[in-house]
Amino acid sequence: MSKLPHTGTTIFSVMSALAAEHKAINLSQGFPDYDCSDELKEMVNQAMQQGHNQYAPMPGLMQLRTAIAAKIRGLYQQSVNPDTEITITPGGTYAIYTAIATYIHPGDEVIIFEPAYDSYIPNVLVNGGKPVLIPLSFPDYRIDWQEVRRKITPRTRMIMVNTPHNPTGSILREEDMAELEKLVAEHNLLVLSDEVYEHLVFDGARHLSVLRYPAIYKNSFVVFSFGKVFHNTGWKMGYCVAPEHLMKEYRKVHQYLCFSVNTPMQYGLAEFLETPAHYLELPAFYQQKRDYFLELMNGSRFTPLASQGSYFQLMRYDGISGEGDKEFAIRLTKEFGVAAIPVSAFYHDGKDDHVVRFCFAKKETTLEQAAARLKNI
Amino acid sequence: MSKLPHTGTTIFSVMSALAAEHKAINLSQGFPDYDCSDELKEMVNQAMQQGHNQYAPMPGLMQLRTAIAAKIRGLYQQSVNPDTEITITPGGTYAIYTAIATYIHPGDEVIIFEPAYDSYIPNVLVNGGKPVLIPLSFPDYRIDWQEVRRKITPRTRMIMVNTPHNPTGSILREEDMAELEKLVAEHNLLVLSDEVYEHLVFDGARHLSVLRYPAIYKNSFVVFSFGKVFHNTGWKMGYCVAPEHLMKEYRKVHQYLCFSVNTPMQYGLAEFLETPAHYLELPAFYQQKRDYFLELMNGSRFTPLASQGSYFQLMRYDGISGEGDKEFAIRLTKEFGVAAIPVSAFYHDGKDDHVVRFCFAKKETTLEQAAARLKNI
Ligand SMILES: CSCCC(=O)C(=O)O
Ligand SMILES: CSCCC(=O)C(=O)O
Repeated sequence: MSKLPHTGTTIFSVMSALAAEHKAINLSQGFPDYDCSDELKEMVNQAMQQGHNQYAPMPGLMQLRTAIAAKIRGLYQQSVNPDTEITITPGGTYAIYTAIATYIHPGDEVIIFEPAYDSYIPNVLVNGGKPVLIPLSFPDYRIDWQEVRRKITPRTRMIMVNTPHNPTGSILREEDMAELEKLVAEHNLLVLSDEVYEHLVFDGARHLSVLRYPAIYKNSFVVFSFGKVFHNTGWKMGYCVAPEHLMKEYRKVHQYLCFSVNTPMQYGLAEFLETPAHYLELPAFYQQKRDYFLELMNGSRFTPLASQGSYFQLMRYDGISGEGDKEFAIRLTKEFGVAAIPVSAFYHDGKDDHVVRFCFAKKETTLEQAAARLKNI
Repeated sequence: MSKLPHTGTTIFSVMSALAAEHKAINLSQGFPDYDCSDELKEMVNQAMQQGHNQYAPMPGLMQLRTAIAAKIRGLYQQSVNPDTEITITPGGTYAIYTAIATYIHPGDEVIIFEPAYDSYIPNVLVNGGKPVLIPLSFPDYRIDWQEVRRKITPRTRMIMVNTPHNPTGSILREEDMAELEKLVAEHNLLVLSDEVYEHLVFDGARHLSVLRYPAIYKNSFVVFSFGKVFHNTGWKMGYCVAPEHLMKEYRKVHQYLCFSVNTPMQYGLAEFLETPAHYLELPAFYQQKRDYFLELMNGSRFTPLASQGSYFQLMRYDGISGEGDKEFAIRLTKEFGVAAIPVSAFYHDGKDDHVVRFCFAKKETTLEQAAARLKNI
């Protein structure tokens, strides 16, 4: 009996394969078409040369955890204990899965907002939990907190949030955090906060990490990614931050799930994090890309939706076609040579608002070529 | 409610920490004190330099899977399809966990032989399964197949085997494979075969991979490790081989658990595997270490048990002390400066045969120093 009878291949693999087949410009799967820092690669190489090739400590290299704690202090004015509250993971997706595997028992309900990153629901199902799905409003993709309250039952164990939000680029605001804080206190919920795009927030907005809110953080797993922000998605390096009492249980599962994470990459990232400019420069770097892509798309028949964060830009195509977003995304790839993700893929019921997602983590020349093709439609 | 209420820190972390604290020679946790190949490190470095730093395909880099299939053909005379039967994982432990998470439903029984690698039982428990524990015979650590048959119930779903065996160094023989084959056919059991020490088999014995037995393989997940054999345990790279119908479900879980695995390391390993000598030389390399360690220990008051594989050597210490193996291992570390693993740590009930495990994946000078200290007892 399959635990995931309705699961096919992830949309990201499907669209990337279709893009390759049709030699389309791939703005679908979220990864950059530029390389990570040469300096960072050399740091990893040096670690290998120096013989740092055996098991790292189970929770991660202490240098790396200390550098992360320093970053958190600088950015979010919070002090977390690297010894007990940070665990290095092979990527953000793994970090999310592990929190769910640790705390979700069969029958436990987990609140998930849709559109949702496509691993969330299967992660809950594999562990016997019940996803409770709540759509974000359209077209501004905000949380209806009244609706959340209506969906809470005695079995509700966890609420998953994601800011900056994939695929929509929306971000949580102060009023959302106030609502979340109340909810956590009233129902003693666990919070799983996916913040893998933490540094990619635009227009002067602040990233409202759950780490800033002690009353939420005390019940939370907060998940981060190196790959998403340092342009090396293929290194599969991330981490989870949680208060000691939660992290203790999390590590019991982690120590027997993969035990530890790539050692030379941890050395390299620890050294790279010592220079705060390496992450402080990221908001401007990505805002410039978003702005450039929007500027290039000016005059197209697509209508951009607001993106305040992440490296994704949603576009409505109502002005072009009335077809479903999957058909449209496939046609876009095959006929017009640009691959995008149909946003209905992020809904369990395929809710289709005629919106596609473009990844703008691309070279300027790539964005120029893609926009030229998209404006021809 | 904890899923693992009785789980503490893994014995490997505990003993390595104790070894560091007391500046003892660390023959406890299984990892080499020599480095992996410079050539291999340079291959990884080249892959990073060439910009292979974004997501690998979800099942793994095709070059690497093809190289693995070639290795399997050469060593085990079997043809597996790299497209559908091989998935690259962040280590062998992860590969084992994922098979269990994919197929074990709450209440399913999983047969595990003890002494057992310490992740097996927690992996089953986290997924709601029921470990059915069967002790291997002492002191030769063989499977009592009659006992296995007595323990089978309608809920038995999976049987886990491990050859070469950690911690004992025993290996499965032809008659074991014949029994396993009958059992699988009669009860349609899944088999999870942990073969991470596949190349470390001594005295001319053949490694009896489940891959050699199509009638077993058709129900099996077979788990391998690069770190354990290429002296880079810290890279956390491994893979799982399974027939297509099983692998299809496995990948559904894998694609949402970590999605994909470190890209530059996969490139490096693919290139390294192209030279079969890199693994064909391993049995002799490790046999020499085992033989040297045994020779050095000649005249000590320890009694070696037969080790036909893995990089572990068990020793009885009855001639030295009547104390429990945990106390003995701690005293060995603190007073005599050599850390070992108490074998009772691999039994759910702490069964104690007064045996400790030494890892001989160490430089000759390390083995010499350790043996000199051990002979002083
Ligand atoms: C793990 S592949 C998907 C990458 C990604 O995060 C996205 O495209 O949304
Ligand atoms: C994952 S740490 C343990 C290493 C090992 O396989 C062992 O010592 O048995």
